[in-house]
Amino acid sequence: MGKKLTKREDDYSKWYNELVVKADLAENSSVRGCMVIKPYGYAIWENMQKQLDQMFKDTGHQNAYFPLFVPKSLFEAEEKNAEGFAKECAIVTHYRLKNDTENPGKLVVDENAKLEEELIVRPTSEAIIWSTYKKWIQSYRDLPILINQWANVVRWEMRTRLFLRTAEFLWQEGHTAHETKNEAVEEAITMNDVYAEFAQNYMGMPVIKGIKSESERFAGAEETYCIEAMMQDGKALQAGTSHFLGQNFAKAFDVKYANKNGDLDYVWATSWGVSTRLMGALIMTHSDDNGLVLPPKLAPIQVVIIPIYRSEEEFNLVCNYVDPVIKKLKSKGVSVLFDKRDSYKPGYKFNEHEIKGVPIRIVAGPKDIESSTLEIFRRDKMEKETIDFDKVYSKVDFLITDIQENLYKKAQDFTNSSTRKADTFEEFKELINKKGGFVSAHWDGTKESEEKIKRETKATIRLIPIDGVKEKGNCIYSKKPSQQRVLFAKAY
Amino acid sequence: MGKKLTKREDDYSKWYNELVVKADLAENSSVRGCMVIKPYGYAIWENMQKQLDQMFKDTGHQNAYFPLFVPKSLFEAEEKNAEGFAKECAIVTHYRLKNDTENPGKLVVDENAKLEEELIVRPTSEAIIWSTYKKWIQSYRDLPILINQWANVVRWEMRTRLFLRTAEFLWQEGHTAHETKNEAVEEAITMNDVYAEFAQNYMGMPVIKGIKSESERFAGAEETYCIEAMMQDGKALQAGTSHFLGQNFAKAFDVKYANKNGDLDYVWATSWGVSTRLMGALIMTHSDDNGLVLPPKLAPIQVVIIPIYRSEEEFNLVCNYVDPVIKKLKSKGVSVLFDKRDSYKPGYKFNEHEIKGVPIRIVAGPKDIESSTLEIFRRDKMEKETIDFDKVYSKVDFLITDIQENLYKKAQDFTNSSTRKADTFEEFKELINKKGGFVSAHWDGTKESEEKIKRETKATIRLIPIDGVKEKGNCIYSKKPSQQRVLFAKAY
Repeated sequence: MGKKLTKREDDYSKWYNELVVKADLAENSSVRGCMVIKPYGYAIWENMQKQLDQMFKDTGHQNAYFPLFVPKSLFEAEEKNAEGFAKECAIVTHYRLKNDTENPGKLVVDENAKLEEELIVRPTSEAIIWSTYKKWIQSYRDLPILINQWANVVRWEMRTRLFLRTAEFLWQEGHTAHETKNEAVEEAITMNDVYAEFAQNYMGMPVIKGIKSESERFAGAEETYCIEAMMQDGKALQAGTSHFLGQNFAKAFDVKYANKNGDLDYVWATSWGVSTRLMGALIMTHSDDNGLVLPPKLAPIQVVIIPIYRSEEEFNLVCNYVDPVIKKLKSKGVSVLFDKRDSYKPGYKFNEHEIKGVPIRIVAGPKDIESSTLEIFRRDKMEKETIDFDKVYSKVDFLITDIQENLYKKAQDFTNSSTRKADTFEEFKELINKKGGFVSAHWDGTKESEEKIKRETKATIRLIPIDGVKEKGNCIYSKKPSQQRVLFAKAY
Repeated sequence: MGKKLTKREDDYSKWYNELVVKADLAENSSVRGCMVIKPYGYAIWENMQKQLDQMFKDTGHQNAYFPLFVPKSLFEAEEKNAEGFAKECAIVTHYRLKNDTENPGKLVVDENAKLEEELIVRPTSEAIIWSTYKKWIQSYRDLPILINQWANVVRWEMRTRLFLRTAEFLWQEGHTAHETKNEAVEEAITMNDVYAEFAQNYMGMPVIKGIKSESERFAGAEETYCIEAMMQDGKALQAGTSHFLGQNFAKAFDVKYANKNGDLDYVWATSWGVSTRLMGALIMTHSDDNGLVLPPKLAPIQVVIIPIYRSEEEFNLVCNYVDPVIKKLKSKGVSVLFDKRDSYKPGYKFNEHEIKGVPIRIVAGPKDIESSTLEIFRRDKMEKETIDFDKVYSKVDFLITDIQENLYKKAQDFTNSSTRKADTFEEFKELINKKGGFVSAHWDGTKESEEKIKRETKATIRLIPIDGVKEKGNCIYSKKPSQQRVLFAKAY
């Protein structure tokens, strides 16, 4: 496992980068900005996917798959969307390599195999999907279309970090089509709520729901709903977005439907997505200086059992002792790993599973057999206790629920205590610079004030709270009147 | 649903193309050679994925994710592999678009954003994965590595067909690393067996297991194991391949491990994959002139229930009548659709679900309520009968098993009757041209004879049967001695 993890207070960013690698979640690849998601990290992502996928299906959505490539002429059809992504997209221009006549064994691009029209590797799929929906939609009978896609996308980011910002990432993107504006707005809100529910109930991550300011909106959207979470270093993280797209894509791709009276109208749209960025959010929300901390509902291994022995005979005794525990826990749907590798010592295993955030550790040795006990350890509080052998099932049951709740509560307390009000720009700057966190402040609703605040403090408007109290006040920057406080923060 | 499906005997190829579209499985996109997999088609693929994924995990594999792009220098490292894919790969050369100054609103490639090294969109991932394994493998303790990846890949095929051959397709690719040659060979054979089991037990598709001849081998492999299935038009389809890669990739990427004695040796490798091509195989194996026929184990909808009514009152009565059936079937894990759309007539629905291959249809109307009966229809045999209401659960149970078995048996009989022996080249040509199917014949083991047979008949060696009887004979082409018959066929 190598040397110790950097402490959060010493260098939070370094702590994160080291943790992702030491917990065996992901690593940088030989392709600039692209990551390799390792099996343990991918297993967490699979658990996230499984739960989200069920929630999408429960809300009436079906999965489908659309092409990786977007022809340039489709890509540029919705101008704002195109403008938003044009500067960071990977472009396929050729379809063949040939032998390099000057360097035997090497290949070069075959200039005779140049595409007539360049293909953009999808940074998001509105364009390719709406050019398809055009063929699918004629009348109100064809609506709504409620489709989700699990896919990889590419955005050529200049500064990348594992999970948080990578050139290629995995995500899901919902793309829906509706008869009315109201129905589309409702869909966008519903899906933002689904994201919030997932974040809170499965990731154990409190989030605040809101609407983006115009300048933070998705390129091509009329309104962007979002969930934002507060990380331990006082920076906010956008965890999911759901966009009401109005009729922008329907107009760009000429998608009309005949309503019940036979009149033609443009279709209303939404799109919504969460990505492997959630992995970064999950890691940063709960983990500590000892490594990863995982909520039991998403942990690939919920319980690790480690045998203590000095001989093969002792090993066999311990195996027999824990065998019913393993079987019964598995039968109850608990994910159990019996770590019987003999090439590693118990101390090494303790350390490895601690840094990998396994929520519960059970240790059993000859002394436990003698006293009919087991040692049980909870990763979130780093607490161990000795329990009666017969109590192990109820204890594991209790811990799975309690750890999940404890993590959420701890993060909720942190978010609450990291959310502060500022009524003057001086107060605001002081809070942003010295404390971080969310700062709730009045804003006059103009791009100009937003931009100037950002330039002077690096803080952006994370969201306009959906259920925020209406409260009259004055913009901290311009001192012009304001109807509601918004949340500012420095952000990932 | 539009006009009738072309009959298989009139134009098999047209029948297939129409069926894929009419059954709502997939369609061509605006990107050359790339398909859109529609929700119904994708739901079948998801069922396949779910089962395969479980089988991979049951055999000790874990999922992970590697980059979409392969830098050219890595791509060309294993020469045979590179040579095999160089002529059909999509190449990313730039990472930015800019406004077209001559055409407002249009974009052009920004020539200032040219990549120093071109990126190949992965046609397969050996290169990117083995360049990563190099970092993961130091000693025998790090072995075996048993990893699978679910991903999209791109091969720039010139002639494409939905599911069977598309420029982008979805697949899984297993990539394993082992200490010894034996272990790697065993892994390759095990995974080929897993594919065969999946094809037979879930797809209801009989397959023949074998080894590819050298010229049909995967580029970079030492041995390619495969499963081949016979389609209804007498053409064979390669349904899955599993490759023993020897030390080729370990040598290309310098991946060595220290064994228990501390000696360094190159690592042994396998790779194996199945793709959305299996969708094409599934469709062609069972479907008929009425549309798609699906094995119940992979059908997204196993039972569709259609109400017959002439008034709202009758509709409500029918709903109450079938409600316990829907609930009980669902509780038993049967996938049920109650098709209560009132914008379509029963006849339309019958036709739609027939063409979409729903295995079982139940119809209920006022007359059924009176007589305490239901009408039940099995898609595979196009047979309907009236059953007592109380018998519906046992009947559905029976049909789910019986349809699955019947489809397999029918396909097995077809494959058997389509496999014929030829002892002379005249016989061989006669069979290949007039009957199609597999032709079992002696071959001298040389590339020359194989190539000449292919040129004269378009038939290729599909496989050298693994459990084939050793039988001395003479090559049908060269008349040179041969130790075993091999299977020839024209192929997809």
